[in-house]
Order: sequence, then C-alpha cells, then structure tokens
Amino acid sequence: MMLFDGGRAPNPRRVRVFLAEKGIEVPMTSVDMGAMGHKAEAVASRNPLRRLPVLELDDGTILTESIAICRYFEELHPEPALFGRGALGRALVEMWQRRIEFNLFQPVSFAFRHIHPAMKEWEVPQVPEWGEANKPKVIDFLALLDKEFSSREFAAGDAFSIADITGLIAVDFMKPARIVVPEEFANVLRWYRSIAARPSAAA
Amino acid sequence: MMLFDGGRAPNPRRVRVFLAEKGIEVPMTSVDMGAMGHKAEAVASRNPLRRLPVLELDDGTILTESIAICRYFEELHPEPALFGRGALGRALVEMWQRRIEFNLFQPVSFAFRHIHPAMKEWEVPQVPEWGEANKPKVIDFLALLDKEFSSREFAAGDAFSIADITGLIAVDFMKPARIVVPEEFANVLRWYRSIAARPSAAA
Repeated sequence: MMLFDGGRAPNPRRVRVFLAEKGIEVPMTSVDMGAMGHKAEAVASRNPLRRLPVLELDDGTILTESIAICRYFEELHPEPALFGRGALGRALVEMWQRRIEFNLFQPVSFAFRHIHPAMKEWEVPQVPEWGEANKPKVIDFLALLDKEFSSREFAAGDAFSIADITGLIAVDFMKPARIVVPEEFANVLRWYRSIAARPSAAA
Repeated sequence: MMLFDGGRAPNPRRVRVFLAEKGIEVPMTSVDMGAMGHKAEAVASRNPLRRLPVLELDDGTILTESIAICRYFEELHPEPALFGRGALGRALVEMWQRRIEFNLFQPVSFAFRHIHPAMKEWEVPQVPEWGEANKPKVIDFLALLDKEFSSREFAAGDAFSIADITGLIAVDFMKPARIVVPEEFANVLRWYRSIAARPSAAA
C-alpha cells in the first residue's frame, strides 16, 4: 500500500498521528501541498476531489477521507482501540469525534481559509465575513469542552481516542488561524498539553 | 430509551430513515423545532449544543450526533449492515458517508441557512455571500457523483448504506435550499429516485 501524505496540513497529520499511536508503519509519498501538489495528476487521478491524504491499496483500491483511512487501520490493527470499545463506547467516540470535528476543527479551518491571505488561491471565493463568524463558534465550543474536561481526562471518556486526535489537530490549526485558547479554559489547556506531549503528536 | 426527534429537519430524519431500514422501533418524543423547541430545557439539559436528535438511554447516558446514534443501533442490530461489511467495506462506507456529508449535505445546508429568510434567527450572522458560494460546490459534487453512479447502484458499492441515507436527506434538503439537480445528471437522478422510493424514505 501507499499513503499519499500532505505534510503540515491537518487531515494528513490526523492519519500520521493515528498511525503513530497504533505503531503502524506505512510507505508514504510526500506531496508538496504548498506547491499545489494535491491538484496535480498523481493525486487527482486517485482522488477526484484533489485532497489529501489518499491511501492506495495493493489492488489499486483508493481510500480517501482521513477518518475512513484511520478506521481501515483500526479494523486491521484493533489494538490499542482508538475508535472505542463496545457498542456504547464506539458510539461515544463517534459522537465526540463529530462534535469536535464540526464545532472546533471546521470553524478553525473556515477562519483560516477565509481570512488568511495565503489561502486566496485555495478557497475561492474567500468570504472574510464567514471566516470572522467562525471565530466565536470556536470559543463557544472550547467553553463547552472546558466543562467536559473538568470531569474526565480524554474527549470521549477515560481512554485516548480518535476524538482526541481530531482535537489535537484542531487546536494546533488555531495557530495559523490566529485564534488563541483563552487562559481561563484551564481544563482544555491541561487536556491539550497532555495530548500534545504524547510522542504521536510529533508525527 | 427515548429518542428526541426533530420532525422535518434533516439530521433527525437521517436517524428515522436508518431505524426504518433496520426495522427498529424506538420510543420518540417530538420536539417542535419550528417553535425553537430544541433551544428549550428538555433538549438543552441533555445536549448543550441544543441540537437534535438526542438519544437518552435508560441509564441516563446521552448520545447525540445522528451518525453516532445510527452507529449505536448498528452495533446492537447488525443486520442489515448499513455501515458496510469487513474492514475495507466499512472504510468505503465511511469514505462515501463523509464525502457526501462534506461535499453535498453541508454545502446544501449552508446555502439554506445563510440565504433563506426563515433562517435569520437560526444562523447568526447569516452570510448570504457564503450561502451563494456553496451552490456551485453542490453542483460540482453532483457531477462527480454522476460519474460514480454510472458504474454502481449505491453510494458506497453494491449495497445500500448510511452513505445513501445521507445522500437522500441532502438531495431532499436541496428543495428548501432552492437548488435543483440538473437533468443532465441522469445517474444521480436514477439513484435518487430509487432510494426515495424505498419505504424508509417516508420516515
């Protein structure tokens, strides 16, 4: 198999952090997204949406969408379980993965893509008003998360999961989006520092 | 258990269609979203995000996010499998569920929420320019889907899945969003008519 990777972009990183947590090594081809490599033939012929990451299996089957790629590896290598354990555990991981994706990662991405000058060619048209509208959504959701983290260690319960990985890439993406976690959210900061200190975060 | 349902809104409907496909009956409480019932205490005390659907289990555990609720029922009642079969099958369903969610359902929702006058209190601030920017995204993705459906019957392969349910609610949501499937997308229209004709679509 071959994983077409996109460097610093958050979705490719989500898969690399996941693989590092699992201890799985996968052959990788680095695509230079800064040079728009994801729009070139090597990616476009495999993913008509021209996005990364892309996993190509040995029989030519293509998997895209970072979470779908992670779920495939979860099925092949169930331990450590990063999508939860048992019916309810897996549902709770799904819930928190989606809550964090839609209420933190996406608003951060919209703020970055619709405001940052470097994104002019990437997000057409940029709608700065929409970017700005997303910044308070980020803060509102961090307030909710801060209450949640007052009573547990990880996003979906007592075990680290894919929901924490989505949280990690979202908070790290706040830097280029120029949004800061308010110091008053002490529980969020404790959680973030603990997951950012895991070896996988360097992936 | 109790499912707090939101009537015509697409996410509550996604769960009802799923349950109908599974043949599962769940006690339901109808919440009048038109009267902002999802902002009232019965929902807000269970879901701080004040959205529907919400599933409350007998022990008081709360599950939100339509896909998380569906996944919970998939675990309890595996047949018919609506999240795919086998490692690769499940990954492909995840891929298509996400592709359709992010590239069809979400752009349709943004077009509706940011343009429709009835959504002024729901989406604050409305950014009409962002709503308009999403309309061509919908058409572009339908063009991609039309090619896909030239060689297979359902979104994620030869079996009906949650990805088709997300597609159904997305296409039906195009009506209030005032976006029409172009007649030239004959494969999309054939697929849509076949899933809209299933008894579950009336849920």
